[in-house]
Amino acid sequence: MNVFVIGLGLIGGSLALDLKAINSRATIFGIDTNDLHLEKALELGLIDEKAAFEDLSQADWVILAIPVDKMTEVLPQILNGIKDEAIVLDVGSTKEQICKSVENHPKRRNFMAAHPIAGTEFSGPSAAQRGLFIGKTNIICEVEKTASSLQQKALRFFNDIGMHIRYMDPKSHDKHIAYVSHLSHISSFMLGKTVIEKEKNERDIFDMAGSGFESTVRLAKSSPSMWTPIFKQNKEELLKPLSEYIDNLNRFKELLENDDFEAIYAEMEQTNRIKEILEGINLKKERSNGK
Amino acid sequence: MNVFVIGLGLIGGSLALDLKAINSRATIFGIDTNDLHLEKALELGLIDEKAAFEDLSQADWVILAIPVDKMTEVLPQILNGIKDEAIVLDVGSTKEQICKSVENHPKRRNFMAAHPIAGTEFSGPSAAQRGLFIGKTNIICEVEKTASSLQQKALRFFNDIGMHIRYMDPKSHDKHIAYVSHLSHISSFMLGKTVIEKEKNERDIFDMAGSGFESTVRLAKSSPSMWTPIFKQNKEELLKPLSEYIDNLNRFKELLENDDFEAIYAEMEQTNRIKEILEGINLKKERSNGK
Repeated sequence: MNVFVIGLGLIGGSLALDLKAINSRATIFGIDTNDLHLEKALELGLIDEKAAFEDLSQADWVILAIPVDKMTEVLPQILNGIKDEAIVLDVGSTKEQICKSVENHPKRRNFMAAHPIAGTEFSGPSAAQRGLFIGKTNIICEVEKTASSLQQKALRFFNDIGMHIRYMDPKSHDKHIAYVSHLSHISSFMLGKTVIEKEKNERDIFDMAGSGFESTVRLAKSSPSMWTPIFKQNKEELLKPLSEYIDNLNRFKELLENDDFEAIYAEMEQTNRIKEILEGINLKKERSNGK
Repeated sequence: MNVFVIGLGLIGGSLALDLKAINSRATIFGIDTNDLHLEKALELGLIDEKAAFEDLSQADWVILAIPVDKMTEVLPQILNGIKDEAIVLDVGSTKEQICKSVENHPKRRNFMAAHPIAGTEFSGPSAAQRGLFIGKTNIICEVEKTASSLQQKALRFFNDIGMHIRYMDPKSHDKHIAYVSHLSHISSFMLGKTVIEKEKNERDIFDMAGSGFESTVRLAKSSPSMWTPIFKQNKEELLKPLSEYIDNLNRFKELLENDDFEAIYAEMEQTNRIKEILEGINLKKERSNGK
């Protein structure tokens, strides 16, 4: 079995590792525009061989794990070049424009649109790890447009690597992911920015930062090359949660200015519910993994 | 040696555990307005005996670890009741009003104002743990106002439990901590609120939340009883970073609306510097701990 992984970062590299572990007869071919990443991927054993787009006609599986703006460019070309029974998976954090880029492609049925939600603030081949996807959610969009035999293959693989599957249409995916992922990134980047701007004149204040600060700015370490295209593709869905977030912060500021500490207490108490919500999800994921 | 810990939450309880471990002859007395906490603290071995404010005349050490609004109320009374050679430490997340509450007290020299930066989103006696303070920063304010023999005792203890000490005036403490701690809490609470409000009608979206969301909303699990008084006492210093944060978010939103993705990329790239900053601090702390 020939597996081509295009883009050898955290997600592409980790999927390569899991695929190899599950299927020892698979040969993993790597494609990356960054030669250093390709060399590193070989060195780390993420891939068996370097390859090029011209080689894709030999692929049984293609995993596309590159920034989402590049995906919409290359996905139609990839489908042009593959054989009839090959399956192409993407792992992008946006789904509408990616699905749209191949909606009328004659080989649309060879493609499955996926979003394995397993990213961290780290990137590049060195960030890849075995078992990254255990207990994580994978959103599959427009599953009905993928050939049923290929669906089965891909779903068996996702199941084998421990993922919890959900089906969703691309528009709903993009709308909801704006709330639970994209907004967190903006919140974190702008928090980091606010504190760094202050630090220009007060170099020592970071000494005072505890684990809470580290946790809230963690995502501000994320790759701009990956995130700029995500924000671009999901602009329309993102403006709403971003405005709501700013409104909530403005309201909190007003309460503070007006010394309305009862209302501040109430806001925090209501939001404490996030504890049970997150615990509930983690339980649910564990159950669905049969743990 | 009689140690009285007033407030048996995460910080008070963890200090009790460390004190006992370092000084096996210390008897730890616990005081808490919440009887359940007191019982739990006994059960968990955080304290040896329950006590009351009237017993403070027997104290060699008093550790005050209660919400900051209660601190300014009880601190003068505590100083009234202690013997001449006793030391009283607070652990509050604000320092100006606490220092002000005893600035003219005849026993001001028995008090040391401290802020061990080791909080998490957890609270109550069950959250207490041995070794919580290893590698963490402790901000000491107005150290010159504490009797020198008591300074030495307290600093030896903080050193023994692995803390990195910094000296600061109360106003600077409150100003900087607003940026690196208090703002993170507001950012996290309002992020949680924004997503929970959305979820009212869309219950399933939390399934899509990954580790990034969990990290940015972690602090929204924090205790409103602890945080409302902190925001109240630090209102003036907090409004500035909060306004700057909102301005940065509004600017990001404008860039998004105007499709200025070059500028968005640049903002994120500049903020990526937080990675080196946080790594630098962690290295510095490790070094100061002789690791």
